[in-house]
This record gives sequence, C-alpha cells and structure tokens, in this order.
Amino acid sequence: MGQTLTEQILEDHLVEGELETGEEIGIDIDQVLTQDTTGTFVWLQFEALGLDEVQTEVAAQYCDHQTYQFDFKNTDDHRFLRSAAGTFGAHFSRPGNGICHNVHKENFAAPGKTMLGSDSHTPTPGGLGELAIGSGGLDVAVAMGGGPYYIEMPEVVNVRLEGELPEWSSAKDVILEMLRRLSVKGGVGKIFEYTGPGVETLSVPERTTITNMGTELGATTSIFPTDERTREYLAKQDREDEYVEIGPDEDAEYDDEIVVDLSDIEPLVAKPSMPDNVVPVREVAGEDVEQVIVGSCTNGGYEDILPAAKMLEGREIDMKTEMIVAPGSKQASEILAREGWTAEMMAAGVNFSEATCGACIGIGHVPASDSVSVRTFNRNFEGRSGIEDDAVFLSSPEVAAAAAIKGELVDPRDLAEELGDMEAPGMELPEKYNGSKTDLIAPDEAVDDDLIKGPNIGDVPLKDPLDAHLAGPALLKMDDNITTDHIIPATQDILMYRSNIPKLSEFTLSRVDDTFAQRALESDGGFLVAGENYGQGSSREHAALCPMYLGIEGVLAQSFARIHKANLFNFGLIPLTIDADDYAKIEQGDDIEIVDDVAEAVESGQEEFTVRVDDGWELTATLDASERERRILAAGGKLPLTRAQYDEGGAAPADD
Amino acid sequence: MGQTLTEQILEDHLVEGELETGEEIGIDIDQVLTQDTTGTFVWLQFEALGLDEVQTEVAAQYCDHQTYQFDFKNTDDHRFLRSAAGTFGAHFSRPGNGICHNVHKENFAAPGKTMLGSDSHTPTPGGLGELAIGSGGLDVAVAMGGGPYYIEMPEVVNVRLEGELPEWSSAKDVILEMLRRLSVKGGVGKIFEYTGPGVETLSVPERTTITNMGTELGATTSIFPTDERTREYLAKQDREDEYVEIGPDEDAEYDDEIVVDLSDIEPLVAKPSMPDNVVPVREVAGEDVEQVIVGSCTNGGYEDILPAAKMLEGREIDMKTEMIVAPGSKQASEILAREGWTAEMMAAGVNFSEATCGACIGIGHVPASDSVSVRTFNRNFEGRSGIEDDAVFLSSPEVAAAAAIKGELVDPRDLAEELGDMEAPGMELPEKYNGSKTDLIAPDEAVDDDLIKGPNIGDVPLKDPLDAHLAGPALLKMDDNITTDHIIPATQDILMYRSNIPKLSEFTLSRVDDTFAQRALESDGGFLVAGENYGQGSSREHAALCPMYLGIEGVLAQSFARIHKANLFNFGLIPLTIDADDYAKIEQGDDIEIVDDVAEAVESGQEEFTVRVDDGWELTATLDASERERRILAAGGKLPLTRAQYDEGGAAPADD
Repeated sequence: MGQTLTEQILEDHLVEGELETGEEIGIDIDQVLTQDTTGTFVWLQFEALGLDEVQTEVAAQYCDHQTYQFDFKNTDDHRFLRSAAGTFGAHFSRPGNGICHNVHKENFAAPGKTMLGSDSHTPTPGGLGELAIGSGGLDVAVAMGGGPYYIEMPEVVNVRLEGELPEWSSAKDVILEMLRRLSVKGGVGKIFEYTGPGVETLSVPERTTITNMGTELGATTSIFPTDERTREYLAKQDREDEYVEIGPDEDAEYDDEIVVDLSDIEPLVAKPSMPDNVVPVREVAGEDVEQVIVGSCTNGGYEDILPAAKMLEGREIDMKTEMIVAPGSKQASEILAREGWTAEMMAAGVNFSEATCGACIGIGHVPASDSVSVRTFNRNFEGRSGIEDDAVFLSSPEVAAAAAIKGELVDPRDLAEELGDMEAPGMELPEKYNGSKTDLIAPDEAVDDDLIKGPNIGDVPLKDPLDAHLAGPALLKMDDNITTDHIIPATQDILMYRSNIPKLSEFTLSRVDDTFAQRALESDGGFLVAGENYGQGSSREHAALCPMYLGIEGVLAQSFARIHKANLFNFGLIPLTIDADDYAKIEQGDDIEIVDDVAEAVESGQEEFTVRVDDGWELTATLDASERERRILAAGGKLPLTRAQYDEGGAAPADD
Repeated sequence: MGQTLTEQILEDHLVEGELETGEEIGIDIDQVLTQDTTGTFVWLQFEALGLDEVQTEVAAQYCDHQTYQFDFKNTDDHRFLRSAAGTFGAHFSRPGNGICHNVHKENFAAPGKTMLGSDSHTPTPGGLGELAIGSGGLDVAVAMGGGPYYIEMPEVVNVRLEGELPEWSSAKDVILEMLRRLSVKGGVGKIFEYTGPGVETLSVPERTTITNMGTELGATTSIFPTDERTREYLAKQDREDEYVEIGPDEDAEYDDEIVVDLSDIEPLVAKPSMPDNVVPVREVAGEDVEQVIVGSCTNGGYEDILPAAKMLEGREIDMKTEMIVAPGSKQASEILAREGWTAEMMAAGVNFSEATCGACIGIGHVPASDSVSVRTFNRNFEGRSGIEDDAVFLSSPEVAAAAAIKGELVDPRDLAEELGDMEAPGMELPEKYNGSKTDLIAPDEAVDDDLIKGPNIGDVPLKDPLDAHLAGPALLKMDDNITTDHIIPATQDILMYRSNIPKLSEFTLSRVDDTFAQRALESDGGFLVAGENYGQGSSREHAALCPMYLGIEGVLAQSFARIHKANLFNFGLIPLTIDADDYAKIEQGDDIEIVDDVAEAVESGQEEFTVRVDDGWELTATLDASERERRILAAGGKLPLTRAQYDEGGAAPADD
C-alpha cells in the first residue's frame, strides 16, 4: 500500500510508535520556530534543561507580536531573545523584520522537513512540503534539546484540487471555501494533504495562504507536494539547493477525500465573527466599510499586497474608509518600496505599518464602534480586533482593496465592470526576492554569548520528583467549566508578566477567589477541587505552571479538558478524577490525603487511588494516564524528566 | 521707533490693548490647529458655543497622537473629528497623514499670519514667518468662533545668527546650543526673533526645526523673517502665491539680544533627561546605544531623514542597535519611498513607522531597561519614552544615524574619518514636494455634514451665570502643592475618557480622596479648600471642568498656580485667596457661605469677600481678577460668555 506524503515524512522522522491513526507517535523535529510572546518562556525552559546548544537543524526566534511596546518589558524580552538565540545557537529575527511564518517561509521552510513552532499558524510552510505543527512552548524547548515530539497520529485527508482559479478569485477564497464546507471544527485531529491537477496552478505564496489558514479548520497541519513551482520559489529566494521533489505515492490511501474545483471558486468573505461564516461577497455587497487592512501572516507577502497595489494605482481610497497595509515581512516591504508600489499606495491614501502581527492580535488599528472592518487576516473572532462588538470580515486582498476603493463591500468583478478600466491583477512573483537580510542574525554572527535578563525576566521554577506521600488542604473548591482564563487571565496587564512566574502567580485563580494565591503560598502544599471540564479554553501552560509554583500538588475534578490535563502532567500536578457525589461532599478547607504511595503507584500504572478527606471519610479517585504521562508526572514534570534524561547521558547534546 | 517682526504682525491683528511688554492684548487669529488628544474637546466646546461654521481663514484638525488604538475610543474620536471638521468647515487630516506641525507647515503655514494651536509645538510655522502660539483648547474653540486671543505681551528677543553651519552641524545643533545657553526656562514670557546674516544660510525646514524646539526654551513662540528661501519652499509646495516678504524694521528695538555664530556650532546632544542638558557629542562618545529613532515634528521632514538615508546607503546598522524612522508626514514618507530611500534604509536595517507622534509620546518603541536611546525628538524628560529610568539623548539626524551605524555615540565627523568613505550629507530639499494630498480632506470635500459621536463622546457641560448667593459645604480640604495630576490623573486608563466628562469626573481628586466625586455629586454645590500653590503642573483644563461638572462653586486656597487659576475662571469657578490662619481653622465638612451678592460683586470689581464658616465665624477672602476675568466668571465661564456674546449678535458668525 502506498503512502501519503504525510506518512512518508512521518516515517522518515519516526522514533517511537506506529503510523496508525489515533496511536501516539514520537517524531524527530528538524526545525523549530518561536515568536516573542511564547519564545521567552521557551528559552527559559531550554536554559532550565541545562543544555548548551540547540540540537535541531534550524531554530529561529522571531519578534513579531510585541512590537508596539508600551513599557520596557517587551523590549527587554526582545533583547533577552536575541541573547538566548546567540547563546544557544538559534537564528534571531529582529523586531520589525516580520511575522515568524513569513520570515520562516522566506528563509528556512524546506520540503520534507518537520517543524514544531510555538504559534498556532506554524503549519504555513506546508505550502512548501514541510510538515509543520503548532505546539506548546515546553514541547518546543524539548524538541530544541533534541527530544522527540509526541502526537496522536492524525487522520490524513486528501483535498483534491481540480481546475484553475478564475480571474479575481484567489487562494484565500479556496481556504474560505474549505471553511464554509467543513466549519472551524472540521479539521480537528486531521492533516489536510492537497493533491490533484489544481496544485500546479497555484504558486507557493498561494499555497502558504491555504496552509496558514488551515489552522482555522482546527487541523493539525496542512501540506502540499512540491513541484516546479516550489523549485521556482526557492530559486527566487536563493535556496534552490534545498529543493526536493516530494509527493504522495500514486496508490496512497487516505482516511477521507474532499474535492474542490478551483474554477468554481468565487470571491468570498467570512462574515463576523467566525472564519467559517462564509458567503459570496455579492451576498453582502453594499455594506459600508470604514476600515480595510491588507497583510498578516495569511496575506502579507509581496504577492498578496501587489494585487491590491495594482488595483489602487492611480486611484484613491474612499474618504470615509481608512486602509492600512501591514506587510508580513520586511522582505515584502523592501521589495514593494524598491519597485515603487509603496509610494503608489501611499498616494492612494494607504498607511503602511511595520511588518508585525499588529492589528491581527488587536494591537493598533482597532475599528471604531459600530463599524465594519475588512481584513485579509485569518481570524475574526469577536473582540479580537480590540473592540467587543466588532464586525470584522475576512477576505482576499482583491476584495479588501475593492472595499477600500468603493467604501463598501463589493465583488471586485462588479467593481471592475463599474470602473471599466480596472484589470484583474492576477498573481505575480517578483523577479527575485532581493530584500536584504540585515535583520536576520545567523548563529555564527551572534552578538551575544550570554543571557541578558531584564528585571521582569525570572527563572523557570522546577518541581521535585513526585513524593510518596501527598497531603494538604482543599485550597479552593470550584464549579464546572473553569477556563484557563479563570486560572490565569489573558489580559495585557497580567500576561506582561509571562516571563516572571513569581509575579504572574499572584494572579492565579484571582477571578474565582482573589485570596487564593496568597493562601496557597502560605500553605505547605494543597489541592484544587473542581467540577466538570476543568481547564477548558486556551492551551496556555501558565495555567498549570502557576499553580505548581504556588505549591499545588494535584487537582481533583469530575473531568478535565484535554490540553490542560496534558499541561498538568507536564508540570507535575496529579490530575485525579472524582465522581459527582464525592465532589459534592468535599468542602473547601478539608484536609486531603492520598493514602497510597503516590510515586510508586503512578509509575506502576495504578489507576485507582484512595483519598482520605478531613481525616474522616474516603473516596476513590482515578488517574487516567498513558505510560509516558506517568513517567512525566513521576519525574515532577516534563522539564525535570527531560533534564534527568540528559543528565543520564541518554540524549545528551553534543558539546560543540 | 521701528518695529520688530513680532510687533508688526501683532499690530496687524490687534483688537484690544497696547503692545507694551506685560500688558494684556487681544489679537485676531487667522489659523487654528488642533490634534486628536485635544481636538475632540475643542470641537465639543465649539458645538456648545452654538456656532455653525469656523470663522478663521484656516482651521485644520489633525490625527497624530492616538494612532495606535487599543480600543474603539481613539478610532471613534477620529471619526468624530472628521465629522466635526466636515460639519463646521475645517480641513481634516486623516490618521496616518502625519504630525499636525509637519502637515500644517506643508499645507497652510504662511508668512504674516497668526495661528493658535492646542499643542505645545504650535510655534513650528514660525520658520515661515507665521506667528504661531500654543494654547488651551477652549481658547482655540473661541478663536475658531471668531473671538480674539488674549495674552500678556511678551518680551521680544533678537537672536542674531552670524556665519554658516559647518559640515555635519545642523539646525538641531543650533537649537540645542540655545538650550545649552538659556536653559529650559530661558524663554518664559519671551518671543525669539531670529535675524542676521545667518538666516539666509538656513532652509525653511532647518528654520522650523529651530522654531519647533523653541518650545523647550519655554518661549511663547519663535519666528524667522521671510526671504527667497521661504519663497523657494512655498513654490516647491505649490503655494508660491502665499509668499509675502516680511521682516523687522531696520531700527527695530528688542528687549534683549543673543548672538549665535553658526560657524562655531558643532554636533551636540542633550543628555538625559532634560533638553538643556547639552554637551558636544565628543564628550559622551563611546556610550553604547541600543535604539535610534529619526523623526518627530522636530526632525521628521524629508530633509531631516534624507541625511540619515545618505549616511546609511550601502551600510548596515549595528546588530545590537535598532533604528526606527518615523516620518513626520505622509508627504515625507511618500517622497522618500518614491526616490528609493525607503528601500535603501530598510536594506540597512531600518524599521519604518507610520507618520505619527508615536514613540515621542511613549507610544511604541519604548527602550529596553538600562539602555540608551538616541532620538531626534524635542524632549527627553524622564519617563516620557515609556520607561521610568530611561536614558534618552536628543540629537540631529546625522548624530543619530552615526550612532546606529557604530552602535555607540560618536561625533559623525569622527565616524566619517574612521570609515573614510562617508561624505557629509548636507541639506537638500526635494525638486518638488510631490506627495499626494489624498489624506487631507478640504472643507468643500467634506464627507460628513453631521457629528458622529461614539458612546465615549459626551456633550460639554455648561454652567449657568454666577449666582448672587453661593453656599455649600467644604467638600474637601487639601494640603499645599496639589497638582492638576492630583485633580485629574493623566494616566491612559483615565484620560481616555477625556471626551466623556461625566465618566472622567468620577476620577476627580481620587488621588486625594476617592470618595470625593460621589460626595460632590450628591451635594448641592460646595467648595474646595486648599493650601499654597493649588493647581500646579500641567495646564489641563479638565482639572477645572470636572470639579465644575460635579457642582463645585469655588476654591478657597492660600494661593493658586497661574494657569489653573485662569482655567477656574474659564469654567466659572470662583478662586478666592485666604490666609494661613483661616485655612487652618476651616475643617472639611464646614458650611461655607459667601455673604456678599457674589454676581454683583464680581462684576463690580470688588476684591474682598466675606465668607461665613459653619454659621459661626467669618473670614475675608480675596478675588484677584482682571476685568476680563470677572466678565468670564460672572457669565459662568468663557464658553457661556462667548456664547452669550454671539447670541447678542455682536460677533455672530455669518450664516453661509
């Protein structure tokens, strides 16, 4: 039986498990990517691992999220990241050089490689045949240390592209069509492999728009085969030698198949406030638009901005509409400037932003109240733009530029007919990607050989291996559906302490009980008690790390959200499931004691634990954990475990 | 006796008083300028005046300060400002079009005109022979309504320029030299008139750098005569018809004279943290520099950035130094992009910002902790960059670019010698200022004919004329030296309500007593009691407006800060001076009653008032006020007075 491209790459990198859907596999990672909101903590964890040098072929640290600094903390983070990259052997992309996905695509993405990145749009290089997966920061730190990445083998879905895109339709419309059909949950547990005769009609930048926004389907990743278009792109980036022809075997078997006829694709938009709320532009034409933004990691390339520039040449944007171009990289900015497009767009009324994530994460250019913003971004979740009741439409650059010219939503085909002299801009790569690389510092050019930590950058706390005897008070009893936002709020005033665990921990569960953190610190250990679905929401690791820092030893809950449960293992907190009656009987303040020898029981695979409450009654709690998770828990978390493995010399890094 | 240029322009515009130093004069205003932090309130006051149309020759509303929006409020403000400009007949400069002073200079500044602007660097057009003065927003609103502007006639100082600037020295060094000699207090109550043979050696952009930063001397304004250089500049801006040759009479008499020999000027810097802390660059050479910013209203023109671009051409900035170019206007951005300089600078490692005030007011690009930032700005007050213990040096673009190349402070003459192939860039105007004017909406192109107020934009409360009988409790008794920051804190979380007086008023005096605002609202009127120097610090009008909104009728203090006292008159609160013994005897909560017929007494010029305290004892309080201030107070403030004058038809605006 033939293999899919996904299976080929995974098999090449497999170090543990078998390629059976749903089975846990461990794979070697070739490249890692971190950005500035997640990177600081990745490097602090890398430091805590006691390693001297990055072990992956490529590690790249970008600065893109926190570039509108309002105090020294973000700037300090950037300086720390430069020093960490220099000290440990990673590439460093300076603030302003662009969004991680764009700069990585330009400089490092390569066919057949595996990549792990601490950002959800890490799959972008799938457009060049790289298998790129987003993950938590600790996984990235471990991968940088040479450790494998563990994942349940996803389903592989064949997305067969047929036909060719008509004029005015774009790659963005292809992924919007996928979202229209499959919804934002349609890709969970899946990898989308694009195949078929339509592939060769799409350039690499078009493919990466699709793989980038595949994240919105909930997919593990998306990937394209490589071909002459890939070789052409790499050659223009001066990296033709990295070209490898890869693709699925002819008789590859997929778990599922979807057929998309590109010639049927018309200009689409995702209406507020979900990327799968997709309709043809014509259905919403006439809606007034006050703001248009072209850019982001999805449509921020030279090739994405050029069509908008061509449409704007010699024209002016509507006086009631503001238009911002936010290039995805300085390479894109520089080539656009060099070719004169920047001046043309400015003359049309466009404002140019620095190459950062910016408005896509609600930083700058927040829409006015009760107004429509059309953006070429990948997400339009309510409030993400920075205003609660926002109305953000997602579209292609062509649809966005048409809206800026007309001041309202309009199908660009209809606008072209109305204007009479506007031609479809098409898709065009530059002669050569000749932007300078001044802002990308290679490991051998590093300017630091020691870490520079500002006053807001602390060390990573490490937990000791699991004790035989666990006991302490039930410090907080919570209801159902406690989110990671409850555990560590994500507001800017709190998350700015993300690299300062002692300070950040002061806010732990403050939304539930603002005396909790202080009580936990003063107590010598203790437990959390919760109802159903504890830890739902964002995957942030700090929701496990901060309770750990405060001395919490375990969580007794009726059920756990999947990712948070993994994080509890990773930071050495035992997650025990209890039933509804026992939950009801436990009161806050009760003494909790696990009767078993916990360390031994966890390692031996024991599932049921006896818990004595308040020296009076007993309940049975269940530990549902894989062998690997038990090893992690017993060691006090993933970081201590990995460090211990290195200390034993098993996977120790080379010294050079 | 001949006249100075200042006297000529003032006499041309005089409507009240005589041109004697220290005497109050009223002058007609030709042009007004407002920006977005002050403009919203200016227009709300203009609306409250009940006027239909701007009466000045030019009124221009700019959006430059609040362009990195973090929620809808700033964007709503911009939309409101556009609607106000359209409704009332002002020019509107869209966000991203540039800093008010730069865009005004390019489009409107004209010889012999008077201008009032609600921004401290309003004097910038003095470089073109315009007499431009910064003031509070209410004065601007009244001037827009056709009312005169009142000011004490300043001293006029002759700054005689001789010689010519050597290579590598610049206009920035001239104003730094002035600051070195005179200090930041050296210009208080003064107008600096530049004369002498050195004037013709300076281009208009060089002159405006000097007049812009004259504000840092504390000067009322600075002004240059006009000549062929002025005509040349206006011609390149397509405004040659606005040229008028003006200058002081040959036998003009000045209050003082300063001689500056330009040929003695060498590259200077202002060290942290005051603009007058000036030394030659060579004295501080070798200091590591982590950040360089070229731009702002002082050095953000095409002509300011070009020298830095020439120095960077074919070079790279130091890898440990980040360099940002923040053009002062989109005109500058567009011409730099059109001529290829933007691409060159990007290739050297420069990040380009949108044309806004940005980092100069601590918005974005905050330095890292314990690091040096070299900026071509006009202010380096401690903390202004966004970090408390900052180390900001002010310099010319040449010195800044040299620091970026070398990674440390260096005299550009020494760097040129070191490099061997770097020539002095000189000062060069473009062939033509051919940037587009898409983002400047003229009154006859207005896109709004009605005000658009978002949920955070309220009306301006108006006070009734002064009552005959004033009585109420002493709601708050305060110590000496209460600042306007105590009265209305200037933090972003509070000042974002600047257009929403009911909401903003909730924070009134909260730093002294956080129950005050609620108590004041619940009380039917009342008084504030304070020690010496009440209302010192920033000139913000809200420190009088908010107490007025809460129903406060007057302030009894041992003494008042000058500007705040004027604001109390302007908002209809009676400022009464009391002596130390009486101050000591009054207790918070005491009933205060002014025994006299207050309305009549104020209008009749009565200076001493009898105040009965707690129905028991009496004290004598003093009202020190000019006739004009008494008229204002009696009317309930400047806004009601001006409105009443219009209603009487005296200065009523035309209807068309």
